[in-house]
Amino acid sequence: MYSSAQEIPEVDQDRLENTILTLANFGKMENGETNRVAFSDADLEGRAYIISLMQVSGLEVSVDFAGNIIGKRAGKDRFLKPIGFGSHIDMVPNGGNYDGCVGSLAAIEVIRTLNEAGIQTEHPLEVFIFSNEEGGVMGSRALVGELTQDALDVVNSTGYSMGEGINRLGGNASRVEEVERSEGSLTAFLELHIEQGGILDREQIDIGVVEGIVGIKWWDVNIKGFANHAGTTPMSMRKDALLAASKFILAVNEVTTSIAGKQVGTVGRISAFPGAPNVIPGEVQLSLEIRDLSSEKIQQLFAGIKNRANDIEKEMGTPFTFTPIDATSAPALTDQRIQKMISEAAKEMSLSTKQMQSGAGHDAQDMERITPVGMIFVPSKDGISHSPKEYTSPDDMANGANVLLRTILTLDTSWF
Amino acid sequence: MYSSAQEIPEVDQDRLENTILTLANFGKMENGETNRVAFSDADLEGRAYIISLMQVSGLEVSVDFAGNIIGKRAGKDRFLKPIGFGSHIDMVPNGGNYDGCVGSLAAIEVIRTLNEAGIQTEHPLEVFIFSNEEGGVMGSRALVGELTQDALDVVNSTGYSMGEGINRLGGNASRVEEVERSEGSLTAFLELHIEQGGILDREQIDIGVVEGIVGIKWWDVNIKGFANHAGTTPMSMRKDALLAASKFILAVNEVTTSIAGKQVGTVGRISAFPGAPNVIPGEVQLSLEIRDLSSEKIQQLFAGIKNRANDIEKEMGTPFTFTPIDATSAPALTDQRIQKMISEAAKEMSLSTKQMQSGAGHDAQDMERITPVGMIFVPSKDGISHSPKEYTSPDDMANGANVLLRTILTLDTSWF
Repeated sequence: MYSSAQEIPEVDQDRLENTILTLANFGKMENGETNRVAFSDADLEGRAYIISLMQVSGLEVSVDFAGNIIGKRAGKDRFLKPIGFGSHIDMVPNGGNYDGCVGSLAAIEVIRTLNEAGIQTEHPLEVFIFSNEEGGVMGSRALVGELTQDALDVVNSTGYSMGEGINRLGGNASRVEEVERSEGSLTAFLELHIEQGGILDREQIDIGVVEGIVGIKWWDVNIKGFANHAGTTPMSMRKDALLAASKFILAVNEVTTSIAGKQVGTVGRISAFPGAPNVIPGEVQLSLEIRDLSSEKIQQLFAGIKNRANDIEKEMGTPFTFTPIDATSAPALTDQRIQKMISEAAKEMSLSTKQMQSGAGHDAQDMERITPVGMIFVPSKDGISHSPKEYTSPDDMANGANVLLRTILTLDTSWF
Repeated sequence: MYSSAQEIPEVDQDRLENTILTLANFGKMENGETNRVAFSDADLEGRAYIISLMQVSGLEVSVDFAGNIIGKRAGKDRFLKPIGFGSHIDMVPNGGNYDGCVGSLAAIEVIRTLNEAGIQTEHPLEVFIFSNEEGGVMGSRALVGELTQDALDVVNSTGYSMGEGINRLGGNASRVEEVERSEGSLTAFLELHIEQGGILDREQIDIGVVEGIVGIKWWDVNIKGFANHAGTTPMSMRKDALLAASKFILAVNEVTTSIAGKQVGTVGRISAFPGAPNVIPGEVQLSLEIRDLSSEKIQQLFAGIKNRANDIEKEMGTPFTFTPIDATSAPALTDQRIQKMISEAAKEMSLSTKQMQSGAGHDAQDMERITPVGMIFVPSKDGISHSPKEYTSPDDMANGANVLLRTILTLDTSWF
């Protein structure tokens, strides 16, 4: 039993770093970069390594029907609901070795540290390595009963459909519904993750305390002008869809930054037709994305952007059409009590903290549907992620793992 | 001999319209639209029809090594330099039946009208139907010695290279240099053409007196930002190349319209990379085109636009690179004396006129290198051109042909 901060053990930083470097070998290519997309042979090999690590750590390991790897450790009281924690080890194409991997290997390192310190928690512990996070948070969606049969037909860059992929991972595509966990079946779920942005690195802060994971809304925007000869059509007689689009892109930026907060608005894709240097663009198609922790704020920003589009339409004679795209997610707030535990754990270790939001989606976003969640961020060098250049230092990884460990122990002694 | 305005004959409006409608049959498709790109079978058939029309009009017809069809009519004084006039009958893909055709068939109609009135001019007359105007003013370039051997390798939508095409037309690709005419070898060159813009139609003016054909300059513009995760990168930490491009496109419009004149500036083509809704664009490539009658003004506008790009680069941290594209042409001014003759010819017929520039390129632009030129515009309905919807009324076509006829006769009696 542990009773004060002094007695809490620390993770083995070198061992944690070694497991990160070892995992990076599964899928390593000749150029030194690693390619480990879900369902690939490299993914299967990486998962086998994770399973063996869990087994030598004394966990009772299983793979559920959705391909999630789950490692269980008994608590003193088998009637308490488990404390869950973990992340994922699959990568985007051309991705890096830290996204997901840090949280996964830190979870196992926490187990090993508890083992060595001879600590048995009151609550059972459950380590989750979610399957195919990058391809649509597949494993965590299944766990909260949100993975539809339609989704199983989606094919990723390996050429396998999700259904085929689940079977490759040792799951069972026809029975994924059975993995659903009921609301309240866990005490809480914790995820340590790299920030994937540049705020902690730039401000030299050790630990990000995540307030929530943003919701994402997408629209296709169509702007109609009139295609015409760029030589024979005077400036005053044009209906230039690209000029209207440019005003719109500036308006998206202005509306998004016009109010306080961490909301972001992005136009990332644009096409102008017919697309010749000597023809005035008659039509533009572009994408609009808005993210925020509050669905109401997203709607408020969208309303402001639509108003500006109306003004541009009137001024330029170029009708705008907005089509919502069904590739969106709702915001998920983390539990404020857990936020406080994370902050205090960091303070005990003299680590600096910052309250922040997660602009990217995570497994914890799904888990919030069934249990209180907490998320811990560690710095990403130069804010680079989803890239072979992704990097988080061994110190930062160990800091995150220690904060994870302390938060688990605080939860264990304060929540029942 | 003719001595006063009263004696000048008028063209046969119905006959002119009939030849336009007949020519439109060569290349007519099932949907009623005509496809007659240079070097196509339809082009060969249309040219055969033109040659037969010229022959029945008593012209001495030949095809030069560049595939130009040339019809000669003797003057009273065989030592005077010929007065040239004409246009082209090839079309852009998905083009219309008036661009080039009106000027070509009006030239032949002028010959027939002179024949019927028993008028022999002092000067020899030469009707030019230039080859492959739409594919790079091929025939007229050859005539002024500007068609390079490199250009002969360019393949158009028919699949034939210019060299192969010239041979198909009855020319001789290996001898195109021999068709070059020397400076001063013609008295003048006149071209009647549809406006291809909407000024005459909108202002209900009969005849455009062309002051010159604009020069065209193109640049490829590259804008470098930094591609990053649209969810995890705060608005204040972005280097959004598409936002910078939008400011640039507005600046092009503002600089172009900031000074008086008919100059035009256009961004017609844009690509943003990587081009995903959830990634901040890290790079944009776009086209910049500026047209004006004055090369100095084009340079002045480009300097202004570059200054604005510099400001945007400093504000946004997004470097701009400008690469000139070698698909440009120098301005060509028409002869002011001929402009006056055209205006007076129109006034004699109670037709309204407007001094204007040609925003599109024409064979006359090349011919200006060797002889004084004049250009007569007639209205394009709704300003539409390079489209099956292109239309010019029989009245307007006849007005243009009559003004062409009178201008030839004025030149004939006043210039030696």
